[in-house]
Amino acid sequence: MQKCKAVTYENHGAPDEVLHVSEIDLPVPGPGEALVRMHAAPINPVDLNVIEGKYPVRPTLPAIAGNEGVGIVDAVGANVTDLAADTPVLVPTEFGSWREAGVIAAEKLIPIPCDIPLEQAAMLKINPPTAWRMLHDFVTLQRGDWILQNAANSAVGRAVIQIAKISGWRTVNVVRRDELIDELQEEGADVVLLESDDLPAQIKDATEGAKIPLAFNAVGGESALRLANALAPGGTIVTYGAMGRQPLRIPNGLLIFKDLRWRGFWVTQWYRTASHEDIHSMFKHLCPLVARGNLHSKIEQFYAIDDALAAVKHAQQSRRTGKILLRLHG
Amino acid sequence: MQKCKAVTYENHGAPDEVLHVSEIDLPVPGPGEALVRMHAAPINPVDLNVIEGKYPVRPTLPAIAGNEGVGIVDAVGANVTDLAADTPVLVPTEFGSWREAGVIAAEKLIPIPCDIPLEQAAMLKINPPTAWRMLHDFVTLQRGDWILQNAANSAVGRAVIQIAKISGWRTVNVVRRDELIDELQEEGADVVLLESDDLPAQIKDATEGAKIPLAFNAVGGESALRLANALAPGGTIVTYGAMGRQPLRIPNGLLIFKDLRWRGFWVTQWYRTASHEDIHSMFKHLCPLVARGNLHSKIEQFYAIDDALAAVKHAQQSRRTGKILLRLHG
Repeated sequence: MQKCKAVTYENHGAPDEVLHVSEIDLPVPGPGEALVRMHAAPINPVDLNVIEGKYPVRPTLPAIAGNEGVGIVDAVGANVTDLAADTPVLVPTEFGSWREAGVIAAEKLIPIPCDIPLEQAAMLKINPPTAWRMLHDFVTLQRGDWILQNAANSAVGRAVIQIAKISGWRTVNVVRRDELIDELQEEGADVVLLESDDLPAQIKDATEGAKIPLAFNAVGGESALRLANALAPGGTIVTYGAMGRQPLRIPNGLLIFKDLRWRGFWVTQWYRTASHEDIHSMFKHLCPLVARGNLHSKIEQFYAIDDALAAVKHAQQSRRTGKILLRLHG
Repeated sequence: MQKCKAVTYENHGAPDEVLHVSEIDLPVPGPGEALVRMHAAPINPVDLNVIEGKYPVRPTLPAIAGNEGVGIVDAVGANVTDLAADTPVLVPTEFGSWREAGVIAAEKLIPIPCDIPLEQAAMLKINPPTAWRMLHDFVTLQRGDWILQNAANSAVGRAVIQIAKISGWRTVNVVRRDELIDELQEEGADVVLLESDDLPAQIKDATEGAKIPLAFNAVGGESALRLANALAPGGTIVTYGAMGRQPLRIPNGLLIFKDLRWRGFWVTQWYRTASHEDIHSMFKHLCPLVARGNLHSKIEQFYAIDDALAAVKHAQQSRRTGKILLRLHG
């Protein structure tokens, strides 16, 4: 049987202790299956949480690491009629994307157009869909509406900025570091502010008192509360991350008298319940944005699969200027 | 000009310091107006909060106290075609219900059927509608569905129990005192439990692990969090009160991974935005429940308007067995 390399682990734990590069079997695709040769996969915070066993979804061990990535269909088995060789595809979470190649049910692959830069497509399955769904599934936004977000320099935050820009919505972006202000403005942020107790007043000034219907929170604690205080009555705050590791503290009046709506979003759960059509319809919107350069993630460095551990170490550093990716094709 | 008595205040403050019984003018109803002779009005916690100036809505001072009550139309002015003398009506908040009579725009009155006991109708405008809206406006309940609530012995809590019972929904009711268990079960509560850290497990036992879609919170703090932990994924917790005076503390995972939805409800705001039709349609459902005795509030004592201060003092005592009402008709 053919073999290929993969980044695997047998036990949950610190990534640099449990991960290693292994040789795995590469079977011939059976009926309904496709053989995918991987092109690239990013190292996301969620990948590390899964490896550590700190995520609500735990793979069966031993497992191949990596939750998203892009590959090219190499061959298909019998009864696969709607997927041809050479099609670029996004792989599903359960595939384990940090590998050179693998065989999987063809119906679980998401085909994408050939005009997308593949290294961008590698980062297209988790963060841009999180931004897209949060922008579309909670509030019906009008052209010119403002959106608030903290952790605005995260991958989701940047996707929010870029999708909002192209959709005619305006963003107030909250970050913790001065040097991000220019950078996010270049990506299309309308307003970038630093975290401070004075934030609600600053937001009011910057938006000229606009009624803001929607906020995205990936920090928690006081940062979330500041966003909530800047929302209009009846506004919705969607929590999709908890980088600050502090629970939300909600004064009861913000619910009762201000009618704020506190929701959460988890793209994994969205994929579980979305129809085939929902998923394809979303990528029909997202792929052209990537192809035209409207949706773009900065990349700091590529690593070969043999250097996966160095790549993981690099990804864990703060103050990076872009994503760390594994280059997986031979 | 005719005169009548009213409970008035010129400054916000402790009710026993600022309230007094005054003689007020009783004009003849002008075009579009009605003269209402009040029958009864309850003393609700919200009445005291408004008098204290601790409520988000502050009346223009001097003001007449009381947010709800029932009266009988005595006479109508010119151009009032859809309201006849002798019709029982609920008065709007801004009327100030602790008075013997008054003149108000006829369109602001809610006519009710004559077969309702008037002392029950006096308590029909705030608490049963809060229960009704919370049961209907957040989640589409199926027959047999469970609902959770804390502060289950409050006026809203009891209305929730009674409306749920008649609608085929089941309730888990959380209280702080043993002696309420039998009482609430007599009113139709399916399960009554005492506040404790073990509550989520007890709820699971009592409901045989049913997926619970909806909870009502009037306490806040840990009590709210216990209800949230007992909800099914995707469930909604509606906060309408904050008796515990503790903010909500929400672990981020309950939003992100469990998709719990945290909402608030304030019946005052509902009345502001509801159409005439919405309001009348709701009372078309509520009034027959009262007439048939399915929706009933216990009354501990009536007071004459001259004894309003004693009534307020009585209403502020905990461990009452029912509501305190002012009897306002001559």
